[in-house]
Amino acid sequence: MAETEKGKLRSSEKEIEVEGHLIDSMILTRIWDRIMELGGDFETLEFRVGKHKTDTSYAKIVIKGRTPEHLEDILKEIYPLGAVPFEVAEAVVVAAPADMVFPDDFYSTTNNPTQVYFNGEWIEVEDTMMDKVIVVRPEKKGAVCKPIKEVKKGDLIVVGEEGVRVKPPERPRESTGIFKFMSSGSSSEKPAIAIINQIAQDLFNVKKAGGKVAVVAGPAVVHTGAAGALGSLIREGFVDVLLSGNALAVHDVEGALLKTSLGVSLKEAVAAVGGCRNHIVAINAIYKAGSLKAAVEKGVLKSGIIYECVKKEVPFVLAGSIRDDGPIPDVITDMVVAQQKYKEQLKDVTMVLMLASTLHAIAVGNMLPSTVKLVCLDINPASVTKLLDRGSTQAVGVISDIGTFLPLLAEEIERLNQ
Amino acid sequence: MAETEKGKLRSSEKEIEVEGHLIDSMILTRIWDRIMELGGDFETLEFRVGKHKTDTSYAKIVIKGRTPEHLEDILKEIYPLGAVPFEVAEAVVVAAPADMVFPDDFYSTTNNPTQVYFNGEWIEVEDTMMDKVIVVRPEKKGAVCKPIKEVKKGDLIVVGEEGVRVKPPERPRESTGIFKFMSSGSSSEKPAIAIINQIAQDLFNVKKAGGKVAVVAGPAVVHTGAAGALGSLIREGFVDVLLSGNALAVHDVEGALLKTSLGVSLKEAVAAVGGCRNHIVAINAIYKAGSLKAAVEKGVLKSGIIYECVKKEVPFVLAGSIRDDGPIPDVITDMVVAQQKYKEQLKDVTMVLMLASTLHAIAVGNMLPSTVKLVCLDINPASVTKLLDRGSTQAVGVISDIGTFLPLLAEEIERLNQ
Amino acid sequence: MAETEKGKLRSSEKEIEVEGHLIDSMILTRIWDRIMELGGDFETLEFRVGKHKTDTSYAKIVIKGRTPEHLEDILKEIYPLGAVPFEVAEAVVVAAPADMVFPDDFYSTTNNPTQVYFNGEWIEVEDTMMDKVIVVRPEKKGAVCKPIKEVKKGDLIVVGEEGVRVKPPERPRESTGIFKFMSSGSSSEKPAIAIINQIAQDLFNVKKAGGKVAVVAGPAVVHTGAAGALGSLIREGFVDVLLSGNALAVHDVEGALLKTSLGVSLKEAVAAVGGCRNHIVAINAIYKAGSLKAAVEKGVLKSGIIYECVKKEVPFVLAGSIRDDGPIPDVITDMVVAQQKYKEQLKDVTMVLMLASTLHAIAVGNMLPSTVKLVCLDINPASVTKLLDRGSTQAVGVISDIGTFLPLLAEEIERLNQ
Amino acid sequence: MAETEKGKLRSSEKEIEVEGHLIDSMILTRIWDRIMELGGDFETLEFRVGKHKTDTSYAKIVIKGRTPEHLEDILKEIYPLGAVPFEVAEAVVVAAPADMVFPDDFYSTTNNPTQVYFNGEWIEVEDTMMDKVIVVRPEKKGAVCKPIKEVKKGDLIVVGEEGVRVKPPERPRESTGIFKFMSSGSSSEKPAIAIINQIAQDLFNVKKAGGKVAVVAGPAVVHTGAAGALGSLIREGFVDVLLSGNALAVHDVEGALLKTSLGVSLKEAVAAVGGCRNHIVAINAIYKAGSLKAAVEKGVLKSGIIYECVKKEVPFVLAGSIRDDGPIPDVITDMVVAQQKYKEQLKDVTMVLMLASTLHAIAVGNMLPSTVKLVCLDINPASVTKLLDRGSTQAVGVISDIGTFLPLLAEEIERLNQ
Repeated sequence: MAETEKGKLRSSEKEIEVEGHLIDSMILTRIWDRIMELGGDFETLEFRVGKHKTDTSYAKIVIKGRTPEHLEDILKEIYPLGAVPFEVAEAVVVAAPADMVFPDDFYSTTNNPTQVYFNGEWIEVEDTMMDKVIVVRPEKKGAVCKPIKEVKKGDLIVVGEEGVRVKPPERPRESTGIFKFMSSGSSSEKPAIAIINQIAQDLFNVKKAGGKVAVVAGPAVVHTGAAGALGSLIREGFVDVLLSGNALAVHDVEGALLKTSLGVSLKEAVAAVGGCRNHIVAINAIYKAGSLKAAVEKGVLKSGIIYECVKKEVPFVLAGSIRDDGPIPDVITDMVVAQQKYKEQLKDVTMVLMLASTLHAIAVGNMLPSTVKLVCLDINPASVTKLLDRGSTQAVGVISDIGTFLPLLAEEIERLNQ
Repeated sequence: MAETEKGKLRSSEKEIEVEGHLIDSMILTRIWDRIMELGGDFETLEFRVGKHKTDTSYAKIVIKGRTPEHLEDILKEIYPLGAVPFEVAEAVVVAAPADMVFPDDFYSTTNNPTQVYFNGEWIEVEDTMMDKVIVVRPEKKGAVCKPIKEVKKGDLIVVGEEGVRVKPPERPRESTGIFKFMSSGSSSEKPAIAIINQIAQDLFNVKKAGGKVAVVAGPAVVHTGAAGALGSLIREGFVDVLLSGNALAVHDVEGALLKTSLGVSLKEAVAAVGGCRNHIVAINAIYKAGSLKAAVEKGVLKSGIIYECVKKEVPFVLAGSIRDDGPIPDVITDMVVAQQKYKEQLKDVTMVLMLASTLHAIAVGNMLPSTVKLVCLDINPASVTKLLDRGSTQAVGVISDIGTFLPLLAEEIERLNQ
Repeated sequence: MAETEKGKLRSSEKEIEVEGHLIDSMILTRIWDRIMELGGDFETLEFRVGKHKTDTSYAKIVIKGRTPEHLEDILKEIYPLGAVPFEVAEAVVVAAPADMVFPDDFYSTTNNPTQVYFNGEWIEVEDTMMDKVIVVRPEKKGAVCKPIKEVKKGDLIVVGEEGVRVKPPERPRESTGIFKFMSSGSSSEKPAIAIINQIAQDLFNVKKAGGKVAVVAGPAVVHTGAAGALGSLIREGFVDVLLSGNALAVHDVEGALLKTSLGVSLKEAVAAVGGCRNHIVAINAIYKAGSLKAAVEKGVLKSGIIYECVKKEVPFVLAGSIRDDGPIPDVITDMVVAQQKYKEQLKDVTMVLMLASTLHAIAVGNMLPSTVKLVCLDINPASVTKLLDRGSTQAVGVISDIGTFLPLLAEEIERLNQ
Repeated sequence: MAETEKGKLRSSEKEIEVEGHLIDSMILTRIWDRIMELGGDFETLEFRVGKHKTDTSYAKIVIKGRTPEHLEDILKEIYPLGAVPFEVAEAVVVAAPADMVFPDDFYSTTNNPTQVYFNGEWIEVEDTMMDKVIVVRPEKKGAVCKPIKEVKKGDLIVVGEEGVRVKPPERPRESTGIFKFMSSGSSSEKPAIAIINQIAQDLFNVKKAGGKVAVVAGPAVVHTGAAGALGSLIREGFVDVLLSGNALAVHDVEGALLKTSLGVSLKEAVAAVGGCRNHIVAINAIYKAGSLKAAVEKGVLKSGIIYECVKKEVPFVLAGSIRDDGPIPDVITDMVVAQQKYKEQLKDVTMVLMLASTLHAIAVGNMLPSTVKLVCLDINPASVTKLLDRGSTQAVGVISDIGTFLPLLAEEIERLNQ
């Protein structure tokens, strides 16, 4: 294949290169696709394809816009997909003009591993999250991802697209069971028990390998009678952190104290006498004890999800929302603080189970790098799709009833754990 | 309370009476509500309320329209709700002018028990179904509900609203657990295992009392791996008839022969090698054997839902649809015939389980009187609501995953049956 | 009808009375239904039914439990439905033992108009909301509904069920078009344009009569291209307050500045070049201006929902949530404060439009008395059902696409307004 | 790159080649992905990538199984994805042993263009549909796709995978607006009016270019008040064939005769007086006239969807289903006949609009080659996903309310047509 010399390129053309599992991880597919969608053209100068499945491929391509501006548009779209300019330029940084203000042309991050070319070196960006900026710290030869609330005047923020390199998600080289690469297609019409057993096996393997598991759970876990199952997973050591909100804790306490959830008898599935006031009784009980932990220590709270967390010293973070009743004293009512606490707990997480949660699960999705293993369960297919769309290398969406799913999962975990 | 003499009524007024559990069964509520919605007025002449909960109440009311036509409109709406003219007139009948043609002013039925006043006697209407006509047979002192396809020239069809009396559904006098009176509110956020156990208990009781149970099942029963659970219910004698379509049978056979459903491995929940063609292989296997029954007898089909039906001599009716692949020889491809076969099998049914079926379940709903006990399960809340809206005195809607629900139900039935 | 003397009642029996539109508003239906569900019995001592549709009815009933405790259980359930003890006792109050702690047997409120019998007088409870407590202020001869966060040590809190009278919702006496009494049945299969025209007429009437209209809107209003339509309703004076969150404002600004919403071109409905970063650009623009209002005043923000609010001086309250990007400076990040601000703005509201919002709409639903007119629109039937379940005397649920619904509604309002 | 001689291949290895837009159409991605999922390996012998976007690429690959059987499994899966053995063998055919019976090892088709290598020539397979068999007709040098019901004893049916070549769908070379390549991601949160205008433009272009448009419509079109809009599209010549069922026609007639749909007033959106019987009145009216066409000719039916079809001589096919009331005489009650009639009408279709139809739309989806342009509209996201999953090269899924969507579409078409 012929080599084009750079001198011959027009101002509306640019040489880029890209390396990795270009074909089966759809890296090149996405790049070419986006170029064509935008009405651009390209010429492949060089293409080396891996002979074996473990080899990476390499491509060198001239991107052709209709005008220099058109070219810029195209480049802006393909750099986040893994394309890198053939001639690497230094990343440009501009100091933040004020606290919580970005320079106009700031680079907005993806949730994929990212590097910045600064002072002649590729520097790894820490704490990668979606839709944030990159702050370079030359003194530490480091770079970090920051949300707008944490930006300080003078922070050196990367602008433009030059000198930034993104490693797009790659398909695992080996068969990975039900965890699909970049899948967002879930279905309720799959063999339910078989899926449960495989997720159990995976969760078991992750924990045996020393991984960290976070559970994001909605109040439906309690309403559907699955609090005992989640409690047993915590007790057995399969949960390292619980992220949730006011309602889960309130109804968990209601269930433990009064055997109802939102007033419905957990044993008989009908409205209990006086049940309407039970969740307020639960809130009042916590206020009287002072906190959930105090309620456990004082012997008020003797079972349930929160009880198991306190006993096992599994940290839980409860983030407030405007629809909360109460909320109970343990709930963090300021959202900026709640986001920070969530982020701290998600550090180094290996696997996340999102169980019948929407609000808190979306919040977690926004904070996760694409490399974390994800199980999303909900009875509403739209919720599952929304969560998986955040982007994850290995994810499985399950459309099922948490009230039957979780007891069966806990049972299988117990079986494996013997 | 004063008695109004009929002579004093205007032409836009009419005396009606109504008897039964008027208040807690909402009979009077619905009548008054509809009168007010239509802008009419009323005067209560007499009201006797039952002193005890088993006593019935009685009301005599003058309905007042703005004009005689307005009155007619109101009466047309409240007769099906249980109101009866104080002075009973004979039902008017008109001969059908041709096969499959009704007289214009035909009376259109509800799915509630109905009587016709003919030759000075109240005659019970047989085979009550929604949206049909009543054919009076003076020679037999009988009356029967007929769909348009079965109407013959000369059939004496009831017209207008006179002389027809409907018994609206009444609330059971005793607490009935999760079966709600006229409920159409279902939720996925109820204690799942508790609901399953109660349905199991109810199914158990119905069978022990000699009741007849029909199951309407969709192919998701097989796709989700629940064929074994349904098979076990059949084997244990808890199913008296199975109503379904081509897809359930095809995938049941596919599962039995090839361990996949629509190509997905039932054990591993991933696409099986060559799986795309498996349902066609199953269809071909049935064509080769000649029929499902023949396939069992020849030893081709050795497990699954259909196998259990054949072994246990439980009748099954498979109705075709335009989206069918094949269809297999057992499927009734003519819809008029299929409707007749369904109706025959639903005769005297006590309880119906609608399991992840929409098309066939709606068909069954249209054929049932309001007195049959109904369990509707689907993962899509809209499907459950649609099915319960057909009207049933005792119904429970469950929004859950059939793949986890049915195995847990079968397990509980087995426990009860020991 | 015979009169029972009180002396003859057993300890498991109690006389209650109830008055109002007992039958068509289902007040008596609900009371009898609940008694029977709980396995109780009753005897009707007196029943006076209104002769005409505007007359109220009256019933005096002996409730019979199996034991005094069973009776208490039943009474606890029927008082909130409108039953009142025949012999009225004073409400019992207990001082709150600490800030944010209720006495154990606190009375938990409904969202219906409520009175307390204190010092020989019936006192109206102000600010009725669901699931709160009643604080009596003897010095002011007043009583008020309080959430737990606002309870102070020493507040006189009503306990038990005695001396509290609830006025359950009553069916409007005249036909009310599509607004259904206590309906929670919505459907997507209704004539869409006809419904839109009727809601427009109703909104028009409410405003002409001097009513106050609140809109609760989700970000889908912007994503679906309906920001212009909502903006026009605000400009024309049909919105008195806007309640929403961070995302609506962010994407409204994104749409105004960059013609995209979440990166999708609002004109071409495809992903725009560089669109992924646009909502972060919008957030940054607001931070630079200092606030939304400042952005309008500085000429940065020149169109959209927020722009119209600022121009028309329509107050807007943006409540934060844990999934927010940013959030922008106008967002109230503390949930306790946000709830207070919402409540202030909902004071004296006549009609609420809930437009494709779940989180914020549920929060509003929790704060509304049952007498406010409600329109709930969402494309997801489950969301509509959840919102209407909060209880409202007149409500209409619409399952439709906000992107086509709102422009057609605004068009019809404009036509009526000429 | 080195060339491997065939002699050196093991029995568990095979050389295949593949040509086309391998990368951006994801052809190679899917092949490699499937090999790895199955635990196989591969070695790339040759790879020529197109230099420009219009050039095709070419790959020659050795597929490596663990055993000859494993290899067979892998090949079975990748041939339908476009892989072709390097050394082409003749297709093997076996005579059908009986009417409606396939030989065991039959080749099951995809919906992509397919060729068979027979007597030394590549023969194009006609009438490609999913999940059928290929019958070779040597005398005509032809081959045709057949469903099981049409197979005759002696038909030469292709077996195994040899000698069959599938052309997988390819991404259009130019930007195609909202029509996405192989997309199954739909959303309700897109700018609605913008999408409507683009679909209108596309429909307009297709008709101006002489294309054939089929509409598959469900009864919700009538229930939501959109019959007038569909009628106008027919009248203006934008619909070439209408495929539907009994309910659409019944409610269309009900709307035309009685201004209601399922008893709901189309003008006022509330239950009409006597509305419950209106659809039965409509059925009776058609039986009296003899057929829909006769009803138009006799002046009984004067407006609506069916009226416009009859007037414009647009063919309509109504397929029955088991839930039908009636059904009316025009409905084909035998499903095998109905499938044939649908297929005849879909011959040479260019674009299909699926409007709020599930049952009939799935049937149509099964009959379409992947090259037909598809618009699927439904308010239920699950229905849209299910329909798009059938596979289409250019498809757009719209989650919206047909009652507002169709009037706005018809309006835009009218504007374009001036």
